[in-house]
Amino acid sequence: MSSTYGENLKLSVFGQSHGAAIGMTLDGIPAGLPVNIDTLQIFLNRRAPGQADFSTPRKEEDQPEFLSGIVNGFTCGAPIAAIIRNHNTRPGDYDNLRDCPRPGHADYTAQVKYGGYQDAAGGGHFSGRLTAPLCIAGGLCKQWLAEKGVRIAAHITNIAGISDTPPSLDWTNPNLDLIDSGFPVLNREAGEKMREEIAKAKADGDSVGGLIECIATGIPAGVGDPMFGGMESRIAQIVYGIPAVKGLDFGIGFTGSSLRGSQNNDPFIVDHNTVRTEKNFSGGILGGITNGMPLVFTVAVKPTPSISKPQQSVSLSRLKVQTLEIKGRHDPCIVPRAVPVIEAAAAIAIFDAMLTQY
Amino acid sequence: MSSTYGENLKLSVFGQSHGAAIGMTLDGIPAGLPVNIDTLQIFLNRRAPGQADFSTPRKEEDQPEFLSGIVNGFTCGAPIAAIIRNHNTRPGDYDNLRDCPRPGHADYTAQVKYGGYQDAAGGGHFSGRLTAPLCIAGGLCKQWLAEKGVRIAAHITNIAGISDTPPSLDWTNPNLDLIDSGFPVLNREAGEKMREEIAKAKADGDSVGGLIECIATGIPAGVGDPMFGGMESRIAQIVYGIPAVKGLDFGIGFTGSSLRGSQNNDPFIVDHNTVRTEKNFSGGILGGITNGMPLVFTVAVKPTPSISKPQQSVSLSRLKVQTLEIKGRHDPCIVPRAVPVIEAAAAIAIFDAMLTQY
Amino acid sequence: MSSTYGENLKLSVFGQSHGAAIGMTLDGIPAGLPVNIDTLQIFLNRRAPGQADFSTPRKEEDQPEFLSGIVNGFTCGAPIAAIIRNHNTRPGDYDNLRDCPRPGHADYTAQVKYGGYQDAAGGGHFSGRLTAPLCIAGGLCKQWLAEKGVRIAAHITNIAGISDTPPSLDWTNPNLDLIDSGFPVLNREAGEKMREEIAKAKADGDSVGGLIECIATGIPAGVGDPMFGGMESRIAQIVYGIPAVKGLDFGIGFTGSSLRGSQNNDPFIVDHNTVRTEKNFSGGILGGITNGMPLVFTVAVKPTPSISKPQQSVSLSRLKVQTLEIKGRHDPCIVPRAVPVIEAAAAIAIFDAMLTQY
Amino acid sequence: MSSTYGENLKLSVFGQSHGAAIGMTLDGIPAGLPVNIDTLQIFLNRRAPGQADFSTPRKEEDQPEFLSGIVNGFTCGAPIAAIIRNHNTRPGDYDNLRDCPRPGHADYTAQVKYGGYQDAAGGGHFSGRLTAPLCIAGGLCKQWLAEKGVRIAAHITNIAGISDTPPSLDWTNPNLDLIDSGFPVLNREAGEKMREEIAKAKADGDSVGGLIECIATGIPAGVGDPMFGGMESRIAQIVYGIPAVKGLDFGIGFTGSSLRGSQNNDPFIVDHNTVRTEKNFSGGILGGITNGMPLVFTVAVKPTPSISKPQQSVSLSRLKVQTLEIKGRHDPCIVPRAVPVIEAAAAIAIFDAMLTQY
Repeated sequence: MSSTYGENLKLSVFGQSHGAAIGMTLDGIPAGLPVNIDTLQIFLNRRAPGQADFSTPRKEEDQPEFLSGIVNGFTCGAPIAAIIRNHNTRPGDYDNLRDCPRPGHADYTAQVKYGGYQDAAGGGHFSGRLTAPLCIAGGLCKQWLAEKGVRIAAHITNIAGISDTPPSLDWTNPNLDLIDSGFPVLNREAGEKMREEIAKAKADGDSVGGLIECIATGIPAGVGDPMFGGMESRIAQIVYGIPAVKGLDFGIGFTGSSLRGSQNNDPFIVDHNTVRTEKNFSGGILGGITNGMPLVFTVAVKPTPSISKPQQSVSLSRLKVQTLEIKGRHDPCIVPRAVPVIEAAAAIAIFDAMLTQY
Repeated sequence: MSSTYGENLKLSVFGQSHGAAIGMTLDGIPAGLPVNIDTLQIFLNRRAPGQADFSTPRKEEDQPEFLSGIVNGFTCGAPIAAIIRNHNTRPGDYDNLRDCPRPGHADYTAQVKYGGYQDAAGGGHFSGRLTAPLCIAGGLCKQWLAEKGVRIAAHITNIAGISDTPPSLDWTNPNLDLIDSGFPVLNREAGEKMREEIAKAKADGDSVGGLIECIATGIPAGVGDPMFGGMESRIAQIVYGIPAVKGLDFGIGFTGSSLRGSQNNDPFIVDHNTVRTEKNFSGGILGGITNGMPLVFTVAVKPTPSISKPQQSVSLSRLKVQTLEIKGRHDPCIVPRAVPVIEAAAAIAIFDAMLTQY
Repeated sequence: MSSTYGENLKLSVFGQSHGAAIGMTLDGIPAGLPVNIDTLQIFLNRRAPGQADFSTPRKEEDQPEFLSGIVNGFTCGAPIAAIIRNHNTRPGDYDNLRDCPRPGHADYTAQVKYGGYQDAAGGGHFSGRLTAPLCIAGGLCKQWLAEKGVRIAAHITNIAGISDTPPSLDWTNPNLDLIDSGFPVLNREAGEKMREEIAKAKADGDSVGGLIECIATGIPAGVGDPMFGGMESRIAQIVYGIPAVKGLDFGIGFTGSSLRGSQNNDPFIVDHNTVRTEKNFSGGILGGITNGMPLVFTVAVKPTPSISKPQQSVSLSRLKVQTLEIKGRHDPCIVPRAVPVIEAAAAIAIFDAMLTQY
Repeated sequence: MSSTYGENLKLSVFGQSHGAAIGMTLDGIPAGLPVNIDTLQIFLNRRAPGQADFSTPRKEEDQPEFLSGIVNGFTCGAPIAAIIRNHNTRPGDYDNLRDCPRPGHADYTAQVKYGGYQDAAGGGHFSGRLTAPLCIAGGLCKQWLAEKGVRIAAHITNIAGISDTPPSLDWTNPNLDLIDSGFPVLNREAGEKMREEIAKAKADGDSVGGLIECIATGIPAGVGDPMFGGMESRIAQIVYGIPAVKGLDFGIGFTGSSLRGSQNNDPFIVDHNTVRTEKNFSGGILGGITNGMPLVFTVAVKPTPSISKPQQSVSLSRLKVQTLEIKGRHDPCIVPRAVPVIEAAAAIAIFDAMLTQY
C-alpha cells in the first residue's frame, strides 16, 4: 500500500472497513491554524451513510477523535492524528469473498497482490469507508483555505445519464450557493429525476454512477509546480485514490479536444485592473499553474460495484466460474456521498500546493 | 518547478526550449538492463518534428548524448543522464510574449509565478520540446518492460471530432500491430480524414486537438499501490505533466458513469487456467491494482494553443486588451507527435510501479 | 514538523507528551509478515520508564493498541497503525516553560518556530516519550529482520566518562548474548560504576550522558543506495531524529581519522568460501553499501537536559535573565532507556533499505 | 543508486569518474536568485585537484557548463542543470579492480550489488570526483544563503592526529576570516605540521585522514523540521553521502556525552534584546531546530583508501587471497579538498530547510 499523499503536507490514511478503527495523520501543517470541530462534523456528516434513500442503511457515526496536533482549537505544529472507531461491523458478511471475488471490486487484485493476507472483510483498506479519514484531512484543509479566501464546492452534474440543468455552474464567476444543500444539484427537478433512477436501480438490485463537478474559487494565480507537480497532476493523484473514480478532466477537458484552438483558447481580458480570461475552458490552469480563474474539474464515478443481482465470478480455489450473490449493505449510488469526498481531495491538493507559496 | 517524478525510480527533466540543452536524469534503475540505442532513436524519431504536413517545420535532431549510467550497452546502476543540444533556436521570435501572453499557454501564469524571471523564449521549460527527454526516459523503460513481456502502444482515436473506425482496439485481446506505423490510427481512411481536418485548420491559421488511447499488455496482476500509489494515480500524475493534456480516463471511464453496475462490472472468467474478465471496462485496474488484463486509458489533448490567427490578449504592463499575432513555427495539431509521449509516460509509470514487485 | 521517515516503508509518528495519545502509522509493509505482540511488548518494556533507579518514577504503560494493518497475527498489506494512550499526565507541571525555556530543550526553538502555538506541556511532540511509537515500528521491523537472519543489539559503552570493559564487542564476530539483559553492558562491574555515577548525579540534582554501540549481524552484502541513500545516511537521518543524540560514527569512525590508510583499510580475506574483511574498522559499510560484515555504529547521547538544579534562563516576555528550577519527573540518565530506541531506529532504517532488495 | 537529495529542492547528482561527464540537476529553486559564475568557479577551484603537494597530480578542469535554469544571471524557476566533461581519463588504470577489490573502497560492495555491471573505472559513481557536482549545487546555495546573511565556512581541525591551535573557532561568535585562505587552518604552523605528516605518508605510499569543523552563521532561529527533518538529520543525510566520511557530531557532540547536564546545557542570555546562549555546546540546534546561534558540526574523514603500498585483497573469481598494488593517481590526504565539499553539503541542507520558511 502507499496510502500517503502530499509534498509539503504528509497525509497518511489507515484502517480497514471492519477493523478496530480508521483514521489519518496529517504532518507538515503550520502551527496556529484554527480548527472548528463543529464545522468539520457538519462536513463529515455529508459523507456519512444512512441519511437518505440513496445510501446504505448501515449506520456509522463518523465522529473523529483527535489524538494529537491540536491544542486549544489551534494546530500546534505537531502532526495531527484522528481516528474513527468502527462499530456495527459484521465480518461474517464477507466470508465467501476470499474465494469468490466480487466483480468491479479489488477482491481479486488484493488476493493476488497480498497473497491472501489482505483483510477481505468489507473490502478492508479498499473500502469506501476509508474516504472518511480523507474527509477529516480535507475538511480541515477546507477550513484553512477558507481563511485565505479559497472556497471549494462540488455538485452532481449527472447520474445514470440524467444531466442537471444547467449542466454546470458558470465557470467564470460561479455562485456556489446555487448548489442545493440537500441533494447537491443545481436544479431540484433534475435532482428528483436522478433520485428516481437511483430508486429504480435499487429496486432492480442494481446500481448507477455519475459525474461530479468541483469548483474552487479564490485561488491566487501562480499556484502549482510543473511539470509533475502541476495542479492537474496533484489533483489527479489524490482524486484517483478515491475508490470508484475512473475519469477526470479539467475545464472543458474531453469536449475541448474536438474544438479548434481559436475556440478553445481563453482570451485574456482586464477586469478591475486584474488580468482574467473571458471564458474559462482551461479550468483555471495554464501550464499546470493556476491563472486566478476558478479551478474547475469533473470526475466520473462508476456505478457501485456492489449489487445484489447475481453476477458471474469464479472460485479462485477451484478455478471454475461461479455465480455470486452479494449480501449485506450497499449504496445503489455513491455519487451523492462522493461529493464531499471530491471536495476533500481537492482541498488537500490545493492546500498542499499553496503551502509552497508561503 | 517540480520536474521530478517517481517513487522507486527518480526522473528529473530539465531544459528550456531555447536554452543550451534539454535532458533528463533517471536514478534508481537496476544494474544490468540492456540498452538499445538504435531502438531508442527510432522511438524518439516518432516524436521529432519536421516529418510531415501536420507538424512544425522546425528541424530538431532529437539525438541524445548519454553522459552516464550506461556502460557497454548495459545500465551500470549509477544514474542515467542524457542531453539533447538545442540548435536552430530563435529567441527573438518570442520577444513580445513577456508583456503580451499567448492565450492557452503558460506565459501569463509563469510571469506571475516566476515574477518575470522565467525563460519566456519558446515557452521555456513549459515547451512541448521538454517531452523529448521524457521520451528518452520512457523509451528506455519501454525496452525494459518489453524484456518482461510488457508491450505499450498508443494510437489516435479522434482528431477534430473525427473518430477512428473502429473507435478503439479490442480491450480484452488487443492486436497492437493493427496500429498504422505512419499516422498512428487503425483505419487509414479515417486517418486521411483527420489529416484533412488538420490541413484545413492549418490553412485557417488555426489548430485542432484529439484523443489518444494507450494500451499496455502483459502487465502481471498485482501491480499498483493504493490508495495514492494506485495505477490510475501513478499514470495520471505523469500524463498530466505533459503539456496540452486536459483529460484522462481509464477503461470505459466517463462513458461508464452512465451505465448500471451490472453493465459496468466485468464478470470474471477462467481462461486457460487463468482468471480473466469477460470484458475490460475497468481498463485492467481494480482498486488501483492491475488485474492481468490489458491496461487501457484515454487522453484528451487540447488543440495547439499556438495559432497564427489574431487573438485577444492583454498588455501586462499597460493592463490593456491587445491583439496578439503569434509568429514562428508551430504544429497545427500535436496529437500525432503526442502519441509516443503518452507511451513514454505510461512506460515510466508502469516500470516504476513494477520495480516494487521485484 | 516532518515526523515521517522512510523510502519504501513510510513511518509517521504522532502525539504529544501530555496529549490524548501517541502513536505511529507504518505504510508500505509487505503482506504476510508475522507479528508477535508478546515479543513486541517485551521490547517496549525495555524503553518504558519506572523500572529502576536510573529512570523517571513516572509510570507509563506502553501497551500499544493496534488499530489496523494486522489480521490474525499477520500483516495484511494495509498501513499498520498503533496508539498508546497517555495517562497520568500533569500539564500543570509545565505552565511556566512557555515564557522561561529550559536550557538544552526545544522549548525556545519551538516557541520561535510555532509562534507560541506549540504544545509546551512536557515538551509536547519533542518529548522523549515520542520514542515509544518509534519503538513500536522498530520492534516490528526487528521481528521481520530476525526472520531474515538479521539480529540487532545495542549496549552502553560509556556513561559519564566510565567505559565498559571491554569497550566494545568484537566487530568481526560479535556475540550479542554477552550483553547483560538487565543494565545493558558487557561487564557488570563497569555497569555498577556507571549506575553509581547516575546515582551521584541524581543526588546532585544533575544528569549524565553516555555512548551506545549498536551492532547488526546477518545483513547480506549489497544493501544501501549511495550517494544519499547509503546505509550511513539512512541510519543517520533516523538516529538524529531521536531526542538527545548529538553524535554518530560508523565503525572506527572518529578514531579512524587519525590512522593511516594502511591501518584503517580492512584487508579482504576468504572465510568458508565467503569474502570477508580481516577486521571491521569500516563498520560493515563500504561506499554506503553493506559488505556482509556486522554493521557497527556508535551514538553519543547528551546528558538529560532536564535537571532539578537551578539554571539560568530568560523570560521571553520580559527579555530578562531569570533563574529556572524545573519540577516534575525526569531521568538522571536516559542512556539505558535509549538503548532499545537506537535498536528500533537501526531496525527501521535497515528494514527499509532491505525492502529495495526484494 | 539513490543520488537524489532534498525536500523542497531536489538535487540529482550523476556521472562516473571516467564516463563522458559528471553533473547535477537542481530543481525547486525559486526564480530570481542571482548567480555569480566567477564566485562559483573560485569555490569549485578549492575542491579541484592538482593544486598542491597534498593532492593528486591528475589535472581536471572543474569548469561547469550550465545547460538550463539560469537566464541572464538569474535563476528562471526551471531546473538548473550543469555538467563537467571528464578529460584525461585512463580507464585502463583500473582494469584489474573488478576481480581484486581495493580495501576501503566500494569495489567489492558495488560488485555484489550491481552484479558486475557497475562502472569499475576509477570507482565509477563512487569516485570522489562526484563531489564536484555536489560543489556546483552547494556553491550556488552558498551564494543564495549569503544573500540572506548566512555564511558557511569549514576548516581543518586535525590531520593525522595533529590538532590545529586553537582546536576550533569560537562557537558563540566565530570570526570566519581567521581561516587561512590557502591551507584551511587557523594556525599556519599547525598547518605546516599537518602537511609534513601528509608528505611523510605520501613518501611511505600511505595516506592520512582528519577532522573538519564546519560553521554556519546568520541562520535565523526556527529552521528545521523534527523529528526526522531536524537540522542534524538533514545535514547528516547529505554529509554521509560524501565518500570517506565516517563520523559526524554537532556542537560538543561526543565530548558532551561525558559531561553533566549542568555543564552541557547552554544557559540562555539576553544580548542586545535578542535571546542567545552563553556558550554553544548544542551547536546551535535544540530539538532539531536552529536557535539563532552559529550552527557547528564536525566531520571525521577517513584516510584515503587508495594507497600505493601493497595490500591484502582477494581474487573474487578464484576466491583466494591476493596482494594488490594500486597504480594511478591519488591524494595522500583528501581532507583539504573535502573542506569545500563539507561547506557545499551544509549549504544545500540549510538552504533546503530554509525554503520551508519562506
